[in-house]
Amino acid sequence: MTTALHFLLAAKRCEIDGLRELALTSEGADLAAQLIHGLQRERGLSNLWLGSGGGRGGDARLAQLADNDASEAAWRAHVQRLDTAGLSGPHGARLFSRLALALQGLDALRPLRAQVQALALDPPAATAAFSRVIAALLAVVFEAADSASDPDLSRRLVALFHFMQGKEFAGQERAAGSALFASGRADPVGQQRLLHLIDSQERSLEAFGAFADEETRAVWAQAESGAPLARLERLRRLLATAGGGAPLDAELSPAWFETCSQRMDRMRTVEARLAGALRAACAARLAAVNDEAQSYERLAATGTPPADPLSFFRDAPAPDGVDNAGRGGPLQDSVLALAQDQARRLQAMGEELAAVRASLNERKLIERAKGLLMAHRGLSEADAHKTLRQMAMNQNRRLIDVAEAVLAMADVLTPGPR
Amino acid sequence: MTTALHFLLAAKRCEIDGLRELALTSEGADLAAQLIHGLQRERGLSNLWLGSGGGRGGDARLAQLADNDASEAAWRAHVQRLDTAGLSGPHGARLFSRLALALQGLDALRPLRAQVQALALDPPAATAAFSRVIAALLAVVFEAADSASDPDLSRRLVALFHFMQGKEFAGQERAAGSALFASGRADPVGQQRLLHLIDSQERSLEAFGAFADEETRAVWAQAESGAPLARLERLRRLLATAGGGAPLDAELSPAWFETCSQRMDRMRTVEARLAGALRAACAARLAAVNDEAQSYERLAATGTPPADPLSFFRDAPAPDGVDNAGRGGPLQDSVLALAQDQARRLQAMGEELAAVRASLNERKLIERAKGLLMAHRGLSEADAHKTLRQMAMNQNRRLIDVAEAVLAMADVLTPGPR
Repeated sequence: MTTALHFLLAAKRCEIDGLRELALTSEGADLAAQLIHGLQRERGLSNLWLGSGGGRGGDARLAQLADNDASEAAWRAHVQRLDTAGLSGPHGARLFSRLALALQGLDALRPLRAQVQALALDPPAATAAFSRVIAALLAVVFEAADSASDPDLSRRLVALFHFMQGKEFAGQERAAGSALFASGRADPVGQQRLLHLIDSQERSLEAFGAFADEETRAVWAQAESGAPLARLERLRRLLATAGGGAPLDAELSPAWFETCSQRMDRMRTVEARLAGALRAACAARLAAVNDEAQSYERLAATGTPPADPLSFFRDAPAPDGVDNAGRGGPLQDSVLALAQDQARRLQAMGEELAAVRASLNERKLIERAKGLLMAHRGLSEADAHKTLRQMAMNQNRRLIDVAEAVLAMADVLTPGPR
Repeated sequence: MTTALHFLLAAKRCEIDGLRELALTSEGADLAAQLIHGLQRERGLSNLWLGSGGGRGGDARLAQLADNDASEAAWRAHVQRLDTAGLSGPHGARLFSRLALALQGLDALRPLRAQVQALALDPPAATAAFSRVIAALLAVVFEAADSASDPDLSRRLVALFHFMQGKEFAGQERAAGSALFASGRADPVGQQRLLHLIDSQERSLEAFGAFADEETRAVWAQAESGAPLARLERLRRLLATAGGGAPLDAELSPAWFETCSQRMDRMRTVEARLAGALRAACAARLAAVNDEAQSYERLAATGTPPADPLSFFRDAPAPDGVDNAGRGGPLQDSVLALAQDQARRLQAMGEELAAVRASLNERKLIERAKGLLMAHRGLSEADAHKTLRQMAMNQNRRLIDVAEAVLAMADVLTPGPR
């Protein structure tokens, strides 16, 4: 019986390791969110600076650079800690390879900033460059979200990731709108892009809502309401509905930038709250599992009540998986009862986790199918989404099934080696 | 750039750790298969011994006990190695907790065998007890199959698991048929049970076929053909079609036992082949990844060609996930190109793996939905399966969707705490 108890303890220690790793990656997600927020601001200020030919945003931009250096240093220090955290397996491999890309993105910031300073880039190129670094950082957070070992914590990380992604679309919306105002005239391509970004943003925030707890959803609903939202929507309408070539009031550019920036700051507050709640949930879960491990250790030290080995046949789960274990019976404190409880709980956790991941995976597949339609049929993101939805309705199938069919078709249609 | 290369190497090492762990669990699956085969024989011989009131099967049973002690010792030694293999996270936790249950099952064998020896059990009780120990061992293999880190290896492990499960249903079929012959008369409940076991067996073997490579499928098709299959099917027909209460020729009992046993031995051969191919595939994959790691290490030692950090913006994947990296260009040997290749490959592997697991998970859900229909509506396994299929056809939905709907309904219908 000692051997079985020994493995129950080993199972607990695995859970504890997993939670420690999760606590560390949650901390990393928070630090990445902080750094991304700074890079989003820098992107906006760089555009202001570039768009005004060096006339505006210069001081704010330099101040932001100092902030960002500090955030970057904090994130890099975290990354060094990850290096020695004993990650292994496919998750570790994916996380480290994402980190390698993100680090190269950050390395590329220094020459990028010199180009911005020298006004050697146009705003769209600068926007694209910053967006790529941010995307590489988001990919690290996504990897963390995709591999969390606890369903509740996984759900929180997934909510945080979707919120961060929504916020990034909001940041790109700010840049796209600024570019439109700066040009002084409505331009259908720019307007279309703006609408895509609003649409993508809403879908990310919907996904956030699907995974977040009610309290955070309420906090976000509160933040996204009232006069600030009305101001944003009015400016969005002005930008989006002006006929092609019609003049846009360039004087509204600062108001647009300010309105969007305030919204980004409010989003950052919600994000920090999500990250804080995640850290607290990690700590609570870790404390609970530590307590359980200690109770097992006490049991190992004091010895377990002598048990009849044949009770295995009376109380173990039947081969067909129907659970017939008596709970609260004489087995209560036996190692067998503990083993059964643990196996049952881990199984349930695994299934719940698989459900969270499956829904994350479905979103990924739908995004990829959309990207494919955009690339192959020259559709806008909104139209690609509409097309998928329409196909699903016509064929009476789920969106995910249609997306899978589209991706399967792509393998056939795309020539050459994969 | 050194830092990024450092993390690329760390990613490789994670892959290597994952593959080593997989090699170890594959070895464990093989040892478990060996032990299970012995326990299946012991179950059959114990039934013979019990059913004949101690008249038959005694010597063979004692010889088998010695064999099984050796197989058990080999499996236990493997388990001790797992203990120090540095497993962690949710997979480690589930595996160890399954191990704890399986070890208790093995601990329970000693008193069980004493009861068998003393003729203190009836054959059905003995069958049920052995089946539970085997189920606990299969659960360990299932956990290993569910957590493999490489899609090809995962598919092989899943194929092996389903084959082992099919073989176990075949073993239970042998016991159920022996019981019918021993009773001397056809009994609808026993006949129904026999048909379930044949049906479950066929579905497990179908699942094996879905995951196995073509060669192994051909080997199995060859093993399951010709005169031996015809003999089995004839005896199955005699058992299954005799009217309720009609006499069964007890003289056929040894022929039934022998025919089934020979089939189990043939299955064991296929199983060993599957396990051998899995071990070889693990070793090959490990060698390949080791080579890759060494080439990275050489690169780290010799230094990488100086790269323009700004190439990140030209070649990194775009934020929307559309892959625009030029391959074979000047980036070929740069750390950036390596990082991109690695991220892309790990991503593809992750998606393929998710697909393998999803199909494993779907099978699990369908099994659970079936179990529910059997429990709540008193259906046989075959009828539960037919009901699910009918619902899917009527509603024009996939089997898995119907299974999910049934399970969701169960949460509503089943009262009390979960």
